[in-house]
Amino acid sequence: MNIKKQFYSVCLMAMVTVSANASDKKVKWKMATTWGSAAVPIITASNNVAKYVEQMSGGEFTIRIDSANKTKAPMGVFDMVKQGQYQVGHTTSYFWKGKDINLLPFTTMPFGMTAPERMAWFEFGGGMELMTRAYEKYGILSFLGGNTGNQMGGWFQKEIKTLEDLKGLRMRIPGFAGEIMSKLGVAVTNIPPGELYTSLDRGTIDALEWVGPGMDIKMGFHKVAPYYYTGWHEPGAEAQFMVNKKAFDKLSDKNQNILKNAMRLASYRMYIEFYHMNALAWEQIKKDYPHIKVKTFPTEIMDSLKSINQELIEKYSTKSELFKEIVESQKVYMKKSRAWTKISDLDYIQDK
Amino acid sequence: MNIKKQFYSVCLMAMVTVSANASDKKVKWKMATTWGSAAVPIITASNNVAKYVEQMSGGEFTIRIDSANKTKAPMGVFDMVKQGQYQVGHTTSYFWKGKDINLLPFTTMPFGMTAPERMAWFEFGGGMELMTRAYEKYGILSFLGGNTGNQMGGWFQKEIKTLEDLKGLRMRIPGFAGEIMSKLGVAVTNIPPGELYTSLDRGTIDALEWVGPGMDIKMGFHKVAPYYYTGWHEPGAEAQFMVNKKAFDKLSDKNQNILKNAMRLASYRMYIEFYHMNALAWEQIKKDYPHIKVKTFPTEIMDSLKSINQELIEKYSTKSELFKEIVESQKVYMKKSRAWTKISDLDYIQDK
Repeated sequence: MNIKKQFYSVCLMAMVTVSANASDKKVKWKMATTWGSAAVPIITASNNVAKYVEQMSGGEFTIRIDSANKTKAPMGVFDMVKQGQYQVGHTTSYFWKGKDINLLPFTTMPFGMTAPERMAWFEFGGGMELMTRAYEKYGILSFLGGNTGNQMGGWFQKEIKTLEDLKGLRMRIPGFAGEIMSKLGVAVTNIPPGELYTSLDRGTIDALEWVGPGMDIKMGFHKVAPYYYTGWHEPGAEAQFMVNKKAFDKLSDKNQNILKNAMRLASYRMYIEFYHMNALAWEQIKKDYPHIKVKTFPTEIMDSLKSINQELIEKYSTKSELFKEIVESQKVYMKKSRAWTKISDLDYIQDK
Repeated sequence: MNIKKQFYSVCLMAMVTVSANASDKKVKWKMATTWGSAAVPIITASNNVAKYVEQMSGGEFTIRIDSANKTKAPMGVFDMVKQGQYQVGHTTSYFWKGKDINLLPFTTMPFGMTAPERMAWFEFGGGMELMTRAYEKYGILSFLGGNTGNQMGGWFQKEIKTLEDLKGLRMRIPGFAGEIMSKLGVAVTNIPPGELYTSLDRGTIDALEWVGPGMDIKMGFHKVAPYYYTGWHEPGAEAQFMVNKKAFDKLSDKNQNILKNAMRLASYRMYIEFYHMNALAWEQIKKDYPHIKVKTFPTEIMDSLKSINQELIEKYSTKSELFKEIVESQKVYMKKSRAWTKISDLDYIQDK
């Protein structure tokens, strides 16, 4: 090898090293979601994280989104992230109450905080710290995953006037709220989403709750049930991005910041997109189905729901110190944030 | 030069070029803010943009924040960004109504949208497109700058029971709301912030509006005025990040995305931080000054304020086609989003 070639080769090696370092930096992640690929705007938040991360890293950090259509395991997100099959998941914390009761209150609680109150509690009122502690032992970091805003109480075939009307009522209402309803004599059933419309139409069930107008409209419930009840059970449900801690720790500082900010931005934005979709869908429903009546459960029922809710909270509080600490923190924060909500937005909308 | 040295030198040049390209990429920007360095949490949003941009670019893109304490020109932000002295500004659009009436409605309008309604209008209801059009001719790109949430109607020395009580009342209330108030006989005065407390205490003025509990508490107004009126005039004031378009166009795609997402994240977060600060401050004020009474203007006054507001909107609408288009878009969007607000958060907070 002559000297010219030799130096050419050294030089080339140096250049190749520089470019190899650059491509070494490429980080490819996968996100599993509990939602299907059509579950707009929740899946939009999942997709937004991938979009923001790719754009802000100049393509150095990418996340492939596997919706529930692909994983076939909507309720497997927790385990898949814990075990590291997926570095990140988009789901919601109360799905894991069967594994650990402490994970229940991070999504929403009946008669609890509204979306802005809850977001303020998470970000500035100690909520994030409590959630971090609750997930620590699973090797999972948990982040805000987007708020649905206030959810409606559901679609009913008949008006609910007394506690008696709830006895034997066949209703699809899952989770903690279902637990409360069943104590009032409701026959709580679990039916796959794809069969809900037909079940409500054919009278297999008498009532169901889903989300709010923005997502309900696609399910068509307004075509087959005339009563739309206002919400009490999910006043500001927060979804969740969960990240495998080992995977997160391997990211550069820069990528950690890009990921954290992308998740936070997608989550705030989801709240606003839900607001928009609910506004549009509700206008459409009112226009096309003017016979639909919005109802609020009478005081007698509301008081019973509240007292059973309180009993269940107390029951779980005796089982876990951390659960007690979380619900107490929420109670204290709700008191002060609700006092503000009342003299601001409530007073403004009520009177003007 | 021998062949060895020659190639060594070529090789070195190539390496230097690679590293020079990397350091060439460093982008240093400056942001001017209308706010002083103590104006938490608005200035926090300015600072957050700088923090997010630096962290997510790994230090390649930095923004120096010059608060009003440094520029001495809080109302010079528009011109400084337009002329390119600052690449970015943090301010709010209604400050520029004297330059261009079309820039007024992007911040807030009396009896207009609440914070989530307004954010939804901007992001999904056509607001951003209208704002982009209004700012185009100035070579400025305008972005969401953070929402204060509902603002209080102000601190009053005496209860306002009738329209007669407003006649001759000396009040600090700037902008469009001041214009409305003056038509009801209020002697609208403009007093520098540093002199407001003393003016209210000594009776130089009878009333003033500032922001809400979170920012008012630091001014001490609650110590010298017993009536705190609820809001009507700024139901969800959105601040503004403005960017010099030429400077923005010079950024790489990656940096454009980092900047846009950093501004959006800081703005959403400001709404939540305001919520938190208002909740905390209001609790503190109630505890320390239990004699303070929260009041809402009586219907007679509210109706007059509404009708003058409507007259002014119509007056400006005849002067500018774009103004008319903007307020019409807001009116249509408010109607549908408010219908949703009423059956969701309002119903929930009212009854439960």
